[in-house]
Amino acid sequence: MKPELNVFKIGGGIIDNEADLLEFLRQFSAVASPKILVHGGGKGASEMLQRLGLTPRMVHGRRITDAVTLDLVTMFYAGKTNKQIVAALQSSGVNALGLSGADGNVIRAVKRPVREIDYGFVGDLSEANVNTGLLHQFLIWGLTPVFCPINHDGNGQLLNTNADTIAAAVAKAMSKQYAVILHFCFEKRGVLADVSDNNSVITKINLTDYAELKESGIIADGMLPKLENAFEALQFGVEKVIIEHALHLNDDLKTTLCLT
Amino acid sequence: MKPELNVFKIGGGIIDNEADLLEFLRQFSAVASPKILVHGGGKGASEMLQRLGLTPRMVHGRRITDAVTLDLVTMFYAGKTNKQIVAALQSSGVNALGLSGADGNVIRAVKRPVREIDYGFVGDLSEANVNTGLLHQFLIWGLTPVFCPINHDGNGQLLNTNADTIAAAVAKAMSKQYAVILHFCFEKRGVLADVSDNNSVITKINLTDYAELKESGIIADGMLPKLENAFEALQFGVEKVIIEHALHLNDDLKTTLCLT
Repeated sequence: MKPELNVFKIGGGIIDNEADLLEFLRQFSAVASPKILVHGGGKGASEMLQRLGLTPRMVHGRRITDAVTLDLVTMFYAGKTNKQIVAALQSSGVNALGLSGADGNVIRAVKRPVREIDYGFVGDLSEANVNTGLLHQFLIWGLTPVFCPINHDGNGQLLNTNADTIAAAVAKAMSKQYAVILHFCFEKRGVLADVSDNNSVITKINLTDYAELKESGIIADGMLPKLENAFEALQFGVEKVIIEHALHLNDDLKTTLCLT
Repeated sequence: MKPELNVFKIGGGIIDNEADLLEFLRQFSAVASPKILVHGGGKGASEMLQRLGLTPRMVHGRRITDAVTLDLVTMFYAGKTNKQIVAALQSSGVNALGLSGADGNVIRAVKRPVREIDYGFVGDLSEANVNTGLLHQFLIWGLTPVFCPINHDGNGQLLNTNADTIAAAVAKAMSKQYAVILHFCFEKRGVLADVSDNNSVITKINLTDYAELKESGIIADGMLPKLENAFEALQFGVEKVIIEHALHLNDDLKTTLCLT
């Protein structure tokens, strides 16, 4: 039987609130090893851009990562946020190791090809780009990898990458050696049947349920790409995907996704 | 016989000039493994402080690392500079792994005690604070550790630390298992007999020479603490200390320090 590996992803909503972040890290510390944390960005880089009198470049409502923005997200995500998380985890006995994809060449990304939009220094990646051998070594050595959403292309270029994509790619890649449980943690208790009712958590969704929930419009908007990602991870061999509240990891109410 | 380990330290003068930095990294890539790089800060954090309309806090001419400054140096040193160096090394075939002291608890520092001056979030450390077991594993796995000058205290606090001190502490600690050569790389070819003549490099300095050079005033000012540090490293077991030009690692002219 494969050993269990828990991969957690937290987003900007948790990172932007220091008390919430510390509470999540306290609960994450109690999760049995081996485990991996992937964190997103938060508002820091955008706020700094504005304080410097610069305007974020947007095309069709989507942020473009130009050279200045890349510098700032690298400073915030790989520097401040990643090191604060690592130091906090160390203080509660978790031997955290902060990583960008460039470190140990642990994730290699490809600059997103220019089609209608030039997204700038944004990286795309798949499970094939994850250096599972080194990650496995880190885990055996008792380390807890903490990924920031900055990767590299192998030619010296850093690339800003979506943290959901990193978490899914790492989970998929590691599922060859581990029974991987992928946790998407955010500010709700799970997928809600009624967006206005935080207790209306749908506790289990399989592929048939998912098709029906999509059809009926209950799952829509931002939740759609998340769930597409999640079901793809399951089809690729990830054991379980859980969507849960970042501040209530022990809550009974949460959404578990499975194929059948 | 112990295997050889080269520990290189580069300072802000090299980091602030992108072409110089890339040239150093190109030459560093050609050095045989195992090897370790320690980099200092550079002007980025101070310039950002000024662009944000903030004034660096100085006491008796010395910079104080307050909370805002700590955030900025963490962003620049652990984020931008460290990841750019790691990505550049990866592109030339060096499997670099960027590290703050918090990562893998690889260096633990102590906040400098407040005496006449409160330096703020500044860390002091010695060779006893270096996690040689994990560093040794990284080297065995073929990784090249790249240290930024940010460490932690084990209680969740990040601390700004002098890069010369980190390089000397790492060199000393690793000298139990390795024949360590510690390289201080800067913008001169070595210790100069005549500061105005870049070719007046003193090629070899032992403890007796050092006493005489100090006595005669040839070694003075900023070079004194560097050499004190270096001779202490030699006395602790480091095999050799070399002071050399960061852009001419293969130059025959350089200063080698040894005990006898």
